[in-house]
Amino acid sequence: MSLSSVDVIRIPTSGPGDTSGLIKLIETGRIDPKSILAILGKTEGNGGVNDFTREYSTVALAGVLASRLGISTEEVEHRIAFVMSGGTEGVLSPHITVFTRTPLPASQARRTEGKRLSIGIAHTREFRPEELGRRAQIAETAAAVRKAMTEAAISDVADVHFVQVKCPLLTSERVDAAEARGAGTVTKSSYASMGYSRGASALGVALALGELAAEPREEDVLRRWDLFSAVASSSAGIELMHNVVVVMGNSVSSSSDLVIGHAVMKDAIDAAAVRAALGSVGLRADGTSNAAIGERIVNIFAKAEAAPDGLVRGLRHTMLNDTDISSTRHARAAVGGLVAGLAGTTAVYVSGGAEHQGPAGGGPVAVIARA
Amino acid sequence: MSLSSVDVIRIPTSGPGDTSGLIKLIETGRIDPKSILAILGKTEGNGGVNDFTREYSTVALAGVLASRLGISTEEVEHRIAFVMSGGTEGVLSPHITVFTRTPLPASQARRTEGKRLSIGIAHTREFRPEELGRRAQIAETAAAVRKAMTEAAISDVADVHFVQVKCPLLTSERVDAAEARGAGTVTKSSYASMGYSRGASALGVALALGELAAEPREEDVLRRWDLFSAVASSSAGIELMHNVVVVMGNSVSSSSDLVIGHAVMKDAIDAAAVRAALGSVGLRADGTSNAAIGERIVNIFAKAEAAPDGLVRGLRHTMLNDTDISSTRHARAAVGGLVAGLAGTTAVYVSGGAEHQGPAGGGPVAVIARA
Amino acid sequence: MSLSSVDVIRIPTSGPGDTSGLIKLIETGRIDPKSILAILGKTEGNGGVNDFTREYSTVALAGVLASRLGISTEEVEHRIAFVMSGGTEGVLSPHITVFTRTPLPASQARRTEGKRLSIGIAHTREFRPEELGRRAQIAETAAAVRKAMTEAAISDVADVHFVQVKCPLLTSERVDAAEARGAGTVTKSSYASMGYSRGASALGVALALGELAAEPREEDVLRRWDLFSAVASSSAGIELMHNVVVVMGNSVSSSSDLVIGHAVMKDAIDAAAVRAALGSVGLRADGTSNAAIGERIVNIFAKAEAAPDGLVRGLRHTMLNDTDISSTRHARAAVGGLVAGLAGTTAVYVSGGAEHQGPAGGGPVAVIARA
Amino acid sequence: MSLSSVDVIRIPTSGPGDTSGLIKLIETGRIDPKSILAILGKTEGNGGVNDFTREYSTVALAGVLASRLGISTEEVEHRIAFVMSGGTEGVLSPHITVFTRTPLPASQARRTEGKRLSIGIAHTREFRPEELGRRAQIAETAAAVRKAMTEAAISDVADVHFVQVKCPLLTSERVDAAEARGAGTVTKSSYASMGYSRGASALGVALALGELAAEPREEDVLRRWDLFSAVASSSAGIELMHNVVVVMGNSVSSSSDLVIGHAVMKDAIDAAAVRAALGSVGLRADGTSNAAIGERIVNIFAKAEAAPDGLVRGLRHTMLNDTDISSTRHARAAVGGLVAGLAGTTAVYVSGGAEHQGPAGGGPVAVIARA
Repeated sequence: MSLSSVDVIRIPTSGPGDTSGLIKLIETGRIDPKSILAILGKTEGNGGVNDFTREYSTVALAGVLASRLGISTEEVEHRIAFVMSGGTEGVLSPHITVFTRTPLPASQARRTEGKRLSIGIAHTREFRPEELGRRAQIAETAAAVRKAMTEAAISDVADVHFVQVKCPLLTSERVDAAEARGAGTVTKSSYASMGYSRGASALGVALALGELAAEPREEDVLRRWDLFSAVASSSAGIELMHNVVVVMGNSVSSSSDLVIGHAVMKDAIDAAAVRAALGSVGLRADGTSNAAIGERIVNIFAKAEAAPDGLVRGLRHTMLNDTDISSTRHARAAVGGLVAGLAGTTAVYVSGGAEHQGPAGGGPVAVIARA
Repeated sequence: MSLSSVDVIRIPTSGPGDTSGLIKLIETGRIDPKSILAILGKTEGNGGVNDFTREYSTVALAGVLASRLGISTEEVEHRIAFVMSGGTEGVLSPHITVFTRTPLPASQARRTEGKRLSIGIAHTREFRPEELGRRAQIAETAAAVRKAMTEAAISDVADVHFVQVKCPLLTSERVDAAEARGAGTVTKSSYASMGYSRGASALGVALALGELAAEPREEDVLRRWDLFSAVASSSAGIELMHNVVVVMGNSVSSSSDLVIGHAVMKDAIDAAAVRAALGSVGLRADGTSNAAIGERIVNIFAKAEAAPDGLVRGLRHTMLNDTDISSTRHARAAVGGLVAGLAGTTAVYVSGGAEHQGPAGGGPVAVIARA
Repeated sequence: MSLSSVDVIRIPTSGPGDTSGLIKLIETGRIDPKSILAILGKTEGNGGVNDFTREYSTVALAGVLASRLGISTEEVEHRIAFVMSGGTEGVLSPHITVFTRTPLPASQARRTEGKRLSIGIAHTREFRPEELGRRAQIAETAAAVRKAMTEAAISDVADVHFVQVKCPLLTSERVDAAEARGAGTVTKSSYASMGYSRGASALGVALALGELAAEPREEDVLRRWDLFSAVASSSAGIELMHNVVVVMGNSVSSSSDLVIGHAVMKDAIDAAAVRAALGSVGLRADGTSNAAIGERIVNIFAKAEAAPDGLVRGLRHTMLNDTDISSTRHARAAVGGLVAGLAGTTAVYVSGGAEHQGPAGGGPVAVIARA
Repeated sequence: MSLSSVDVIRIPTSGPGDTSGLIKLIETGRIDPKSILAILGKTEGNGGVNDFTREYSTVALAGVLASRLGISTEEVEHRIAFVMSGGTEGVLSPHITVFTRTPLPASQARRTEGKRLSIGIAHTREFRPEELGRRAQIAETAAAVRKAMTEAAISDVADVHFVQVKCPLLTSERVDAAEARGAGTVTKSSYASMGYSRGASALGVALALGELAAEPREEDVLRRWDLFSAVASSSAGIELMHNVVVVMGNSVSSSSDLVIGHAVMKDAIDAAAVRAALGSVGLRADGTSNAAIGERIVNIFAKAEAAPDGLVRGLRHTMLNDTDISSTRHARAAVGGLVAGLAGTTAVYVSGGAEHQGPAGGGPVAVIARA
């Protein structure tokens, strides 16, 4: 079995256009641009439709990597999965997380004890607009998850701890194109299509990982909140028409220094779940040492959302009725405060829009830490 | 020594005009309107200059109590301290907390074991506009704190765990009135005056409680962030020109079922401080039972603010640069998420604007719980 | 034919709870509280779901009128139509407009030259939740418009220049109640139901006034933007389950000093339509005298909305993609700037949410002025 | 006298990163990249501190021009003045305006009738942080205006109709650097420094153009609102430490097809001033033909601000008390609605922050149109 070395590096940014941290790590040899598989980032926009910090950050990073790799930015964006999550509300600190993988030559290969962090990436085929939020997106995503697991050399679904999906959304042009062919889309609203696409993608993950009793039906999307994946995290973006799936788990084929674990927050204040996620990678969240914990954490990945029934543990929240601040911003701020408090660091990846990603009002929380 | 019975009742609200919970508790005899000393509330506005939910809530509650007590609303507002804190960002749940005190007849007086929750209230004299944010406000607040301690039968400053101050702000009319007399105010901006008034009030609390090495100078207000009170919480309101001081602590003269304790958050993610505050009233925040903790808590009172240096534990936050959402909203959402997570309940009192209330970027956190 | 005297008084407010202007006019005899038919107001909230300034203003005004009329606030709210429109973006100035009607004794009746301002009010029956946004609401509103025209002694639909409708919205309780009876509502979203209710109400007005070629079908609501009323203005509120219709027009039976006219803005920058509306009541908007025009205007009533196709005269607008500011706030600010600029006064009634009220992206604009 | 040909091309954009319109005009030969003097843009951010659309747009445009001109992006940003104004509230449509100048060979030179649009650019020296908002910035800006007038071959100040200044702001690093040298800055707040820098720059323009009775004193900045320039428009940006001055006026040395004129809005609803500005370049704003006017306009440039006394023509506005939306956004939306309505087009340049640029609450409005 061939081994690979997987690394994850978190880099603070001073703005959405700041690539200086990445450049420095490339120049010092800490990061080999050829080894980069994916970059997940938190950028300081509003996380909504008019959040251009995601696009700006992707353009800036792809530009740097294009010049370093001697390829075009289009090729960079095809080779590397860029997932920018807008919104650093409250204490959240803007940063990027770079995922690298290097095959180890047999001579260098040194078996680590136990399973270690492994990453696999796969793409679905291009979708037609009318397929978003529907059966095709679910099924194709499931197939891509299985493919990415194979690439990551993870055979047991129990070893999968986080699946980041980047998925398309509808624009009026895409809706029109579908209608011109006589095909209706699941919604005509761009904003609403983001939820459908995220939700169907998450159900695809759940399907691949055996988290559902039966194959989900199209009409379950955004309705049957009891159907969800405990490890899916999906983000919709305008720049693609297929899904990109990044599977993260532990594998015997990895000689990484890192491990990953996860838990599921049942609601937005589920401190016990955050502690369980920390505990799953050997970090004691005993309430006295969160600064120390922060040192060992490479990053935490969590999804946040406002409970759709308007309640957290029986008490009313006001996130869904606020016409001034969108509920995703509220949810990221609150869950970010809790996760950062327990983890002892604020450069954590808390992302909004958790349809079928964890239970309603809750969400997955995964931790990558030094073994 | 005469004993008094002090009670604290938290009541969820369905909107800023909702008084039904209070009415019901009055009608069932749970609350005697004559015993009400103070009502602290979280209302669902933006907590800024144009947050009318505070005023609406006060008007509605005062109206109910006026009819029950057979006095005018002006008399109600004079007798009872209403402190409405706007902003229920993230998971925070709108609610009011009613503080009552009933003198116990000697026959009924039953000594409790140890010190129990006691509350005292005092008012300063009216301030002139030019006194806000300056020496007079500091000194008069300090005197009022000492008076309120006496009323609460608390002699040791170590027994004081939370001091809520309601203080005035400047309006253009007030600035003009001062200038017409040839007196300059500390600022001409209404918004900025809120910070000066809160800050000077907090320094007055610190002075009274012996938390400062020397008497603070006028120029220290909003500058010397190392000077602060560990228990002060101040809110500025347009409807008064004097300070109202509510001292909460533990006293041997109280036969309350409740106790109060506190800790100081060093920064906005200081989970250890929240746990210490819970621990100070006997609640084990060991990370497994936050729902159970929520049951025993009457309420938590915390102040939150964006660290003025733009950093939380060395990492950049974006709260102070956000032109879309004010930093106080960000801070309440994040600290609210952490406090609610550790406390297991979202109807907690997290208030913004923590000048000289705890260290820069941090703030006091007090817990009232059943003994 | 009996004559009535109709008056309209615009009163600036210093906040949503400010009733001092109304009280003063009552005390000086300028307004007889018994003659008040309706109060339309612009309050300084966000105009969205969590805009409590509308409710606060209504409660405050109804409280004052209850004490003056010696009846309960419930009776006041039944007798007088309160329509509070939230949102004073840009230059818009908070104010209320009080509409009064007094029957004139035959002896006093003096015929004015030509038709003068007349007002009629009618209520529909209570709706069931599942009727909102559907045929019943359309038909019942049409019937109420005809009834209100009769009350206003207006027989020709060409004399109707503004029809303000206050209509219900759905809450989760109302949706649940319908579903418990096996009836489905047009939407489950409170926010979306406001649009359906406003839209169906406007189509009801259009039907009554003969503005449609055929009776509108249920599926036309929020879809057939070519169907609209040129004089309808509808606002959804949580506090009622029926429609209240206020018809404003000119009638030979009125001896008012005032007249009303209107035009239809084709898009959000249709300056020509605003000028035409001013011209219809004899005000020359010739571009040099807008301060003078402001003197003669009693008020202007306009509806504003972001063009659903994302374009104004072929150029892209960004109102529908802004996650920070709702499109209704953008639209009120822009149309308010134009209307105030041409009218020479900022205390104008520009209201958002113009479904089937004027063409898509445009809206009715009516002017009441001294004859 | 050598003639030059000056052109101004307005290009709609589909987002802050959209350079396709510029590229197309370069490729079709309509724009020669070597002739570009300045690009003024409206981008769809919030116009505040965290508006990254300005930077993103500049980076994208400079990147395109660098590759077309065969120079570095740094050289592009030095050669061409990029002034991006964030905020397309209400009907405002994102776009860029490209200013070009080509010297005409004597053979080609054809005298036009009367004066035509001419543009001159000049830079001040670098400022030290402590000079911002103070005498040095005023004086150096005035000198640069004179230099730019010479470059534009405009000798009479009456021929200057718009002076766009791009000026620096303070950051905490810059404040620290000054303090390390023992020098105090005019303010420590980044946000406040923008106002000081804009204000001092505008006073520099006023000084150069003889609009002031006496040389302004340092203490007049942001205090003496009666001192202002009728043609200054200044924008603060983080990327430079000197002022860039773009003077626009009419000159006999220009053979442009375009002319420029201006007027001064006395307040935010000064429709007469907008009409006067249109009239100054021969456009009849007679109230019936705003679509036709839109055809002939190349662009309108206006500054907007909330009146600091809280009133527009005696009636209260709420822009300065809104904690949800900054006053600059309100002001741009309202003035944008009025200007677009009278001009018949929404791709107009309305910019916020008008300190000493026109009277308090008002601002300059300039029009470039085909002669």
